[in-house]
Amino acid sequence: MRPTPFRPKAFPCDPRYIRDHTTGLVWHRVAHRVLYADTDRSGIVYHANYFRYFELGRAELLRDAEFPYRSVEESGYVYPIFELGLSFVKALRYDELMWVHTRFRELDRVRVGFDYVITSSASGDYICNGFTRHCATNQSGSPVAVDPMTIEVYNAFPS
Amino acid sequence: MRPTPFRPKAFPCDPRYIRDHTTGLVWHRVAHRVLYADTDRSGIVYHANYFRYFELGRAELLRDAEFPYRSVEESGYVYPIFELGLSFVKALRYDELMWVHTRFRELDRVRVGFDYVITSSASGDYICNGFTRHCATNQSGSPVAVDPMTIEVYNAFPS
Amino acid sequence: MRPTPFRPKAFPCDPRYIRDHTTGLVWHRVAHRVLYADTDRSGIVYHANYFRYFELGRAELLRDAEFPYRSVEESGYVYPIFELGLSFVKALRYDELMWVHTRFRELDRVRVGFDYVITSSASGDYICNGFTRHCATNQSGSPVAVDPMTIEVYNAFPS
Amino acid sequence: MRPTPFRPKAFPCDPRYIRDHTTGLVWHRVAHRVLYADTDRSGIVYHANYFRYFELGRAELLRDAEFPYRSVEESGYVYPIFELGLSFVKALRYDELMWVHTRFRELDRVRVGFDYVITSSASGDYICNGFTRHCATNQSGSPVAVDPMTIEVYNAFPS
Repeated sequence: MRPTPFRPKAFPCDPRYIRDHTTGLVWHRVAHRVLYADTDRSGIVYHANYFRYFELGRAELLRDAEFPYRSVEESGYVYPIFELGLSFVKALRYDELMWVHTRFRELDRVRVGFDYVITSSASGDYICNGFTRHCATNQSGSPVAVDPMTIEVYNAFPS
Repeated sequence: MRPTPFRPKAFPCDPRYIRDHTTGLVWHRVAHRVLYADTDRSGIVYHANYFRYFELGRAELLRDAEFPYRSVEESGYVYPIFELGLSFVKALRYDELMWVHTRFRELDRVRVGFDYVITSSASGDYICNGFTRHCATNQSGSPVAVDPMTIEVYNAFPS
Repeated sequence: MRPTPFRPKAFPCDPRYIRDHTTGLVWHRVAHRVLYADTDRSGIVYHANYFRYFELGRAELLRDAEFPYRSVEESGYVYPIFELGLSFVKALRYDELMWVHTRFRELDRVRVGFDYVITSSASGDYICNGFTRHCATNQSGSPVAVDPMTIEVYNAFPS
Repeated sequence: MRPTPFRPKAFPCDPRYIRDHTTGLVWHRVAHRVLYADTDRSGIVYHANYFRYFELGRAELLRDAEFPYRSVEESGYVYPIFELGLSFVKALRYDELMWVHTRFRELDRVRVGFDYVITSSASGDYICNGFTRHCATNQSGSPVAVDPMTIEVYNAFPS
């Protein structure tokens, strides 16, 4: 159950990315803080709310690549999720500041996927990792090929 | 801050309505139970989540009058909220079963409003009261007159 | 991606359970309806909200076995989730009535897991399946053995 | 229904505050962006989710005054909401960037309240205003006098 250690190092000249020195992989990252609204009566973040954090990670990765998801949708595409997963090592608590790390997991003709790692900003503790897989559809929900903006973001992602 | 006492009595032949013997008013009611997802780390229901319960109360009032809100929307109307309020006497806790009581607050040419009272099913305790006010719009968001279905539900509400 | 077909048949004398005639497995089930609050601007239920439905399924399975999760917690145990997953075949829409089917996935000395299948009540359509895996902890969050109530529910689950 | 116009001007030397030149009042402010998770199927932010934004405004006001709410709770106090309200002029949409403006509404021996105004960052449009009123309790939920940190933040709030 222990994940591979995650050892982020600053990316030269661009604080929006880090390189994990365990795997060599580059990740986009964004800071976020836990609200009271996110917690449950056990004192930790309710499990479903991590998908909000993943959405934020994904949205900011696309925005920082200059193709915000809103523009993707305005160009006629929707990317519903068809599969997702999440594994916890530790829980986040109220008011804790986190890093949400996001990178592409896959891209094929009709699907795109993202991987996520959340760490605690203060302690560096590994909190969880997860993924979401999306299929490309048009606005009526029919499957289509992945749009050109998403392909461009994928190809331009630092490595 | 103490609200008027709420003394619900069963409505003859229809368990979906009660009459409050303090005010004489008739309310629709529906039972609902608190999920873990609704609570926050102080152990009680997070305040914003009461509006989910109010939505449930409103939806079931309309459904029991045979004009579910989905049909109202399918007939071309949307009812965005322009004002809402909520006052607490006591908090709901995890797994607590509640009654959500709902009745019309107002109906005029372009607006409709609902009042809500939530009580604990087990103890009868008064939990909170609140209201939502909605304006009638068409699907492009322009103000229109309240639709015929809603007027019919309003006129048929038991008194 | 197509899941095994799900062919629920009523369970003799107990409407809270069904047998899936494709696999022969028994599932607990509970009905639930989509709120406006659950949807997002693409018109379907936001993916994270399915974990609310799973929580409901899990809670009602335990309640119907006479050991509601609240009693489990009151006896000193907490069951945080350490892994979860979800695969969609189809999306739920506003006001749609669903069946949430739940059964044990596993039980070992320190962990318990549940599987879920959601179907549309009206059409019978397969919506999604998923799972949650929980570890037993005491109230300070230290790992402990699974509590006796949960073991009893597991052993008594119809087969 | 039209609120008083809101004409924010930068506050000398401190971008975390603005003065509204219509009323002369000083407000704390923080930027925030609408997630997909916040929207509903009508395409706008679901009304209950504005209370998340208000929580953010309140939390950042306290943090910027160097008494984050977490510290207040750690010193033995909890501030449950006993009343809240919200009036909309316009709706926020997906991905829209907002300013959440927050200021004290009241402070007496046992209660504290906040006022909120949300505007669209891009257009400057007035979106909504609202308030929350909180009573001071100890960790067992009994009413107590407002804690010294909160009084200090109230007294130090710029005017």
